Parts: sequence; C-alpha cells; structure tokens
Amino acid sequence: MQFPKLPKQPLFIALLFALPYGAISQTLAEKLGYSKEDKLLIIHGDDVGVAHSQNMATFEALKKGLVTSTSMMVPPAWSAEVEVLAKDIPDADIGIHITLTNEWENFNWPPKAGRSMVPGLSNEQGFMYPDCPPVTKNASPEEVEIEIRAQIKAANQMGIQPTHLDSHMGCIFYGRPEYMKSYLKIAQELKIPAMVNTQMMEGIIKPNQALFEGINLEKIPVINEIIMANPEDYEAGMEEFYTNKLENLKPGVHVLLVHLAFDDEEMNAITAGHTTYHAPWRQEDFNFFTSDQAKKLIQENNIKLITWKEIGKIL
Amino acid sequence: MQFPKLPKQPLFIALLFALPYGAISQTLAEKLGYSKEDKLLIIHGDDVGVAHSQNMATFEALKKGLVTSTSMMVPPAWSAEVEVLAKDIPDADIGIHITLTNEWENFNWPPKAGRSMVPGLSNEQGFMYPDCPPVTKNASPEEVEIEIRAQIKAANQMGIQPTHLDSHMGCIFYGRPEYMKSYLKIAQELKIPAMVNTQMMEGIIKPNQALFEGINLEKIPVINEIIMANPEDYEAGMEEFYTNKLENLKPGVHVLLVHLAFDDEEMNAITAGHTTYHAPWRQEDFNFFTSDQAKKLIQENNIKLITWKEIGKIL
Repeated sequence: MQFPKLPKQPLFIALLFALPYGAISQTLAEKLGYSKEDKLLIIHGDDVGVAHSQNMATFEALKKGLVTSTSMMVPPAWSAEVEVLAKDIPDADIGIHITLTNEWENFNWPPKAGRSMVPGLSNEQGFMYPDCPPVTKNASPEEVEIEIRAQIKAANQMGIQPTHLDSHMGCIFYGRPEYMKSYLKIAQELKIPAMVNTQMMEGIIKPNQALFEGINLEKIPVINEIIMANPEDYEAGMEEFYTNKLENLKPGVHVLLVHLAFDDEEMNAITAGHTTYHAPWRQEDFNFFTSDQAKKLIQENNIKLITWKEIGKIL
Repeated sequence: MQFPKLPKQPLFIALLFALPYGAISQTLAEKLGYSKEDKLLIIHGDDVGVAHSQNMATFEALKKGLVTSTSMMVPPAWSAEVEVLAKDIPDADIGIHITLTNEWENFNWPPKAGRSMVPGLSNEQGFMYPDCPPVTKNASPEEVEIEIRAQIKAANQMGIQPTHLDSHMGCIFYGRPEYMKSYLKIAQELKIPAMVNTQMMEGIIKPNQALFEGINLEKIPVINEIIMANPEDYEAGMEEFYTNKLENLKPGVHVLLVHLAFDDEEMNAITAGHTTYHAPWRQEDFNFFTSDQAKKLIQENNIKLITWKEIGKIL
C-alpha cells in the first residue's frame, strides 16, 4: 500500500507526523485531560441485576461516592430493578456486564436471546453454563454476538443507555478472539468504551489484527491495569489487599472491580455452596468501599476517581 | 354408533350396568376409600420456585404437616432450589404450577420454552405477561402446550416427578378452552391429576365436549371446591376467613390454596408495588397454617388432610 502523494513542504510534513505521533504518544490519562503522572481509578461495582441484595448494596455504594461505576447483568431475574434504582441517581454510570454464564446452583437464568436462538449458550436445562470453558466450546461467535445485542436491547427497553461494556467472569476475554471482535465492534457502534487492558490489547487483539479489521483499534481506550481480588487475596484479608492496591497504585488509568452485596439470607441462598465471591465476600467489599478508611486512602494517595462516562467522552 | 351385540343373560346385563353406574354415582371421596360424609382437604402451598423466601416458608410448612401439598413454578429463577429442599421431604407432594404469567414488576422470567419458540407468551422485553388476558389474546393453544411440556420437562431434569398439575393465576382455566384441553391431555399422559373443580367441569369442559375428544373425562377426579382468599378476605382479616372456611367445610374433596412466604426483604422487593398476594399476606398464610390454632380447627372439625398423590393413585 502506497501513501498518496504529498506536497513536499517542511511545515506540512512536520504537522503530518506530529499529529499521529502525538496521538500515539499521548497516554489515556492525557487524552482525558489529566497528566501522565496522575493516578486515575474507576471503582466498579460488578453484577447489578443478579440479586436484590446486590442491587441495593451497589446503589447505596454509588450514592456514597467511592464506587463510581457499575455494570448490569441483563439475563438474571433482578435486572428490571436496576431501572428503578437508577432513577435515584440520574447521572449514574451504568454499563452492560455482558453475561454468558450462570455460576450459581439454585438461582438460574437462560440466555436473554432465548435458548433456541442461541443453543450454544444454554445447558440441557435451558440455563447458561456455570463457567467460561463450556461457553468457548459450545457457543459460536454468531451466537455470542446475538446474545450481546439481545442484552443491550433489553437494557435499553429497561431505560438503561449503557455507558460502557465489560464481561462477566471475563468469558469474552478468555473465550474465542471472535467474541472479542463482536464486543469491540458493538461498543464502536454504540460509541461507548468496552473495557480492554494492555494485556488484552497485546495478547489477543494485536496478534489477531486481521480479525479485527473494520474496528478502529487506535481509538480503543486501553486501561493500564484491571485490579480484582482473587480467592487467595480473600483468604489473606480484603482490607489488606485493597489497602495495598490503593497505596501502590501507579500512574495511569485503572479499573478496580468489586462485588457489592449484603451478607443476607437472599445472597447466601444465591451463592450457596460457594466459598468465594459469595455473600460474606460481597459484604466485605461493600463495607470497605463505603468506609472512611477507603476515602482517606484515596485522598492520601492522590487517587482521582473517574467514570466510564468520562472515558466515553473522548470517543 | 351402535353397541356391539351382547349376550342376553340377565346376570351379565346386570354387571354391565352396575359397573359404570356405580362408578358414576361414587363420589371422589368414596373412590379414595373415604365415606361420602367425610370432609377431605388438600392444603396447598402455591408458588414454590418463585423466590427463596417462598421456597423456605413452603417447605417449613410442609414439614410441620398442615400444608400437605405444593406446586412449583418452573420459569422463575429459584425453581432449582426446590430440588434441593425436596430432598429433605422424600415423600413430598409436589406438582407443577403451570406458569403463563409474570406478575411482578422488578423480578422477571421468560417462558421456559424460550421466547422464539413461544412468542405469544412473551412481552416485548422477553418476559411473560403480567396477567391472563394478554396471554389469552396472544398465546396460541399450540404455544401453551409447548410451554406446559417445557415446564414439565425442566422439572423432571431438576429431579421433580410431579404428583399433579395446576395453573398459576388460573390462566389455563380463564383462557381458551384449548388450553384446558392440553392441560388435561398432558395430565392423562402422565397419569397424574390436573386440578379441576365442578365449576370447570360444568362450565368449560362439558359445554365443549367435542374439543376434549380423546380425553377420558369420566376419569378426571373433580374437586368439589377450590378455596382461596381474595383481596376482600385479606382486608377483612385472614384469620377470620380461614377459621370460617375450616368451620364450615362441607363433605367432599376440597383444595385450599395458600401462598406461603416470609415478610422479608426479598419477598417485599419481589412483590413491590402490590398490596395483595404480597409479602405480608404470604407471612400471614404461613403463620396461620403452621399454628396450633389451625391444627386444632382441623381436628375439631373432623377434617381429613389428604394429598394429590393420594388422588393420583386412583387414576
């Protein structure tokens, strides 16, 4: 491929190279109007829509202000309550937590598009699979795209105009690269960001560049680090984990994924049989991210809390 | 149509007529081995599967013994928990509460067969309609039959072999007579009773006899009275309503439909915006039908508690 003929004027050439060079060298923080040294953080409450308990805790935390963003699971039974709760926070930053799995034993949901439309996303009983591997094995890229669109459409019908997309349990990221393509393509259509970090850009997107043709990869706002506690962190103590992460946050744009619910009867029944990401875990997340201690840590460490909406504005 | 030629022996003729005549004149109570004067009652906890709260309260009441039977709603998110709870009561009398509606605003479910299989049972958002009239208007008899079969199949996959069929909100009874045909036909295939009372037999089935061809109408165990509190009864006081019903129960086989749940956070959130059949109503039902007072009333009025399983044995 040849470049079109350009006039050989030094100033023009300088401008020509200055622009893309500048664009590439500018960090996401800078594009957002901050400095390269700023520590920017979205504290993101995952999983609204999955339970009444999750909905109430997440919206309470959003109101208190440290949790700045959330994303909703559309297929579970409680998604319509998000619309009601969102009315209390008109400016709420609510995305779609693209859901391809149903990890709980006694509380279930089918794919939003319907099992006969997307049979590869449904187990024998008509529910989504409990984990990502059977999704990757059974769901065609076309089915995943149909399901993503069905979830967004249903959220729109519930009055939610999503500010961003992300992926429940990361099944989009750990599945087939084609899933990632649909995810990025749809986000581009909606002119909203889809959560992508440096690792995904380098490990999935760039090595499969031909697959992503038609998607403006340069425009994707790439997050530096996605932070989330894992079972070992929970074992060692959540307060320690979060304190450590906040105290050692590096300059850049980061997303901290938390799961906010109450350690109540409903949430214990939903997460029955699980010893991680269960009701007590979610209560701990809620306690920490509505605490004065967390507020103080954020202030003392000069962390600037931002939202996906803010990132969406540069698209 | 002519009868085949029969030998003209008086004894044979006597036997021939004695059998059907006896069968017709025998009351359901007598067929069950009771006397015509006995007051037989199924106290039936509707709606398990709809909520964790409903599941826990209903199974607690079943264990305490006054509530003798229940039927499960398959499409809602909590149906799989019924399987777990049923393990504690190996002989539990569990039917399928055929569900064609989704009456709650913030807690939703799609048809079990999937919206693209049964579009007439799904609103724009993919959920079932909130009341029976839009079902009658939109759902073809074929769709209703597909949905009934899908719900039974899913219950079987959850380890539930239903002892009987009945109808959530009565949409089968108040809808098209063809719905009733599928309901009776499927019950006959499964060799289990489908709840039908004298009124339905006289008002729906007999006037449409041609429609019900192929169904052995004589074999249907017809309940004398289906008793259920309505909103005016709730206003006037549930204790008074139930006391009155138990004190004045007539001889025959009756079903008393109750709705057992706890007046807790989850149930209040599910039934939000409703002032009837809501969490406090369901707690009152639970309180009454686990009370010594109800036990005493049943004993003093010589009411014999029976199950659908018992009725199923005569089929």
